[in-house]
Amino acid sequence: MCKSLFDHIEKFTTLNPTEIDKLESVLNLSRIKKKEHVLKEGQICNTIYFVVKGCMRQYIINSRGTEQTLQFAIENWWITDYLSYHNHVPSSFYLQAVENTEVIAIEKNALEALLIEIPSLERYFRIVSEKTFGAMQMRIKYLFTMSAEERYHHFNDHFPEFVQRVPQYMIASYLDFSAEFMSKIRAGKI
Amino acid sequence: MCKSLFDHIEKFTTLNPTEIDKLESVLNLSRIKKKEHVLKEGQICNTIYFVVKGCMRQYIINSRGTEQTLQFAIENWWITDYLSYHNHVPSSFYLQAVENTEVIAIEKNALEALLIEIPSLERYFRIVSEKTFGAMQMRIKYLFTMSAEERYHHFNDHFPEFVQRVPQYMIASYLDFSAEFMSKIRAGKI
Repeated sequence: MCKSLFDHIEKFTTLNPTEIDKLESVLNLSRIKKKEHVLKEGQICNTIYFVVKGCMRQYIINSRGTEQTLQFAIENWWITDYLSYHNHVPSSFYLQAVENTEVIAIEKNALEALLIEIPSLERYFRIVSEKTFGAMQMRIKYLFTMSAEERYHHFNDHFPEFVQRVPQYMIASYLDFSAEFMSKIRAGKI
Repeated sequence: MCKSLFDHIEKFTTLNPTEIDKLESVLNLSRIKKKEHVLKEGQICNTIYFVVKGCMRQYIINSRGTEQTLQFAIENWWITDYLSYHNHVPSSFYLQAVENTEVIAIEKNALEALLIEIPSLERYFRIVSEKTFGAMQMRIKYLFTMSAEERYHHFNDHFPEFVQRVPQYMIASYLDFSAEFMSKIRAGKI
């Protein structure tokens, strides 16, 4: 189950056998049931999660009292609340499994100690974080520049499987339009 | 001029004198004139910038042909296009000085080589990147959950000096509302 994580790390850096053993000793394999939370608003986030199989999401409850998805994480993505993790402040977010999901969880204390020991791991997390930040910059660009219809088609073109897999209301909120608009556009009425 | 960078690094990690010398050898001090660009859409981004004094911004030109600011960087912030930097693809963004600005620029090739040599620097950039990503998650939350009026007051409460310093139309686009709305709210008409 850890193979996918080690394969992902190999894309960016190399760990020697001793480092692999040390990393393995802090990995916690976990199955999260569909709709189960690993973090709720107000809790301190002390864990990061790597999705092995399935899908997690980060969401908020907006001023109308409805859930709004800010981020999805499918296979080979990390998900956490970095602000809560680093600043030790209560989280503003919920982290939840969208499907039955297998994750590798790493606790902050164990990870931060290991990162000091293994520079290649610092490198891996630095590059992954910078690339994820770059993807987030593009996401804000799309939110600002594309119409709702364009955002839907762009998302559907890039992640066709994903659109089949995840409940429509979650994708609608991720793309910042209503579930009604989503139904119409999927029915070809827009 | 490099003192502010070394002070910032000290907040997260420690460099020994040899490492400080090596880092200094790749730093390029530069003065960017107000409105001057260091990156334009379509160019490959091979540099990261640390703001010593002044203000930089990242913006796009939206579908109405107007500039929309996605990010500001004031003193002690890094700014770059990480997607272009890591994937070697043309940038979707402009990076421009909002005021006459002093930056420390580091070229990608020199930095990436140095990061392999100096694990503490990997650590520094990893933590800074994760914290910036966390701040971006909050930014998306605010865009999704606050009204335009709430976003203005929140920004004004947290960065009162900044609101005085930066042209209003840039802040308006950053907060995703019109310059007209900005004028009205500042005049107390909303």
